[in-house]
Amino acid sequence: MRKLVAATLVASIGATLALQALSQANPNQLINNRKGAMNLQGKYFSPIFAMAQGRANYDPKIVQRNADYLAALTQMPWDDFQAHSLDAQNTRAKEEIAKDEKKFRAGAEQLQKQAQQLQAAARSADEKTVKSVALDIARTCNGCHESFTTMNFRFKL
Amino acid sequence: MRKLVAATLVASIGATLALQALSQANPNQLINNRKGAMNLQGKYFSPIFAMAQGRANYDPKIVQRNADYLAALTQMPWDDFQAHSLDAQNTRAKEEIAKDEKKFRAGAEQLQKQAQQLQAAARSADEKTVKSVALDIARTCNGCHESFTTMNFRFKL
Repeated sequence: MRKLVAATLVASIGATLALQALSQANPNQLINNRKGAMNLQGKYFSPIFAMAQGRANYDPKIVQRNADYLAALTQMPWDDFQAHSLDAQNTRAKEEIAKDEKKFRAGAEQLQKQAQQLQAAARSADEKTVKSVALDIARTCNGCHESFTTMNFRFKL
Repeated sequence: MRKLVAATLVASIGATLALQALSQANPNQLINNRKGAMNLQGKYFSPIFAMAQGRANYDPKIVQRNADYLAALTQMPWDDFQAHSLDAQNTRAKEEIAKDEKKFRAGAEQLQKQAQQLQAAARSADEKTVKSVALDIARTCNGCHESFTTMNFRFKL
């Protein structure tokens, strides 16, 4: 009986591991998706950041459109930072993301909250708040990059 | 006088070319941005497509969220397909995009229109329309990939 239980247990663990392997998303796809979201955040945030720093003329139409996009984009990267896709050759994401998931999640939520503040300020044509929130967002980006990636890119504040 | 005009013209052309070079976006950045938008379209469309084909259970919450994301994402890739970034080693985008810009733009606009139909159907909980529009979207993806990329990926309809 004990042998039967042991054999069943081994078979069951084997099946569970096989299922986990099947259900694990392809790490390259996860990496491509999250890099995509990060690049697009850069594409639509950088013009607003340049306006906030006075390096570009303030354009409320571009601010509104980009802030709307950022409210969506800042929801997208985080579920792709799965433990089995960290610390690989084609990513600069560090294993600290899995080790300190709570801090990582807090950074993501801070960015999402700030993106919503940016969108609200853009909608009410509040240029002053748009600019100050944009600087806050740049700080959030830098803080998270510092802790959780090996990339050198930082916004110069 | 004729020499002066000629010299001025040459200098002016030189300055224009230099300015164009300066204002041209980095092709790798353009490629990364548009690949990002394409990957994210895949991330959020694929689950809806699986539901439309009956390979996954219909989940109206996921449909609503993903349709909202797709309405934004389908606006993002097209301005990054600039002529100087086509036919490079790290892209499967073909020069036909620049050669037949009108057809390329028509495909992009069709996708945007369908993404808006998908979003509207999701909002009014119209499962039947969500599913039929999802199949239309897959056909639009395939048609554009066929004409304008060297990639093998097609949605199986």
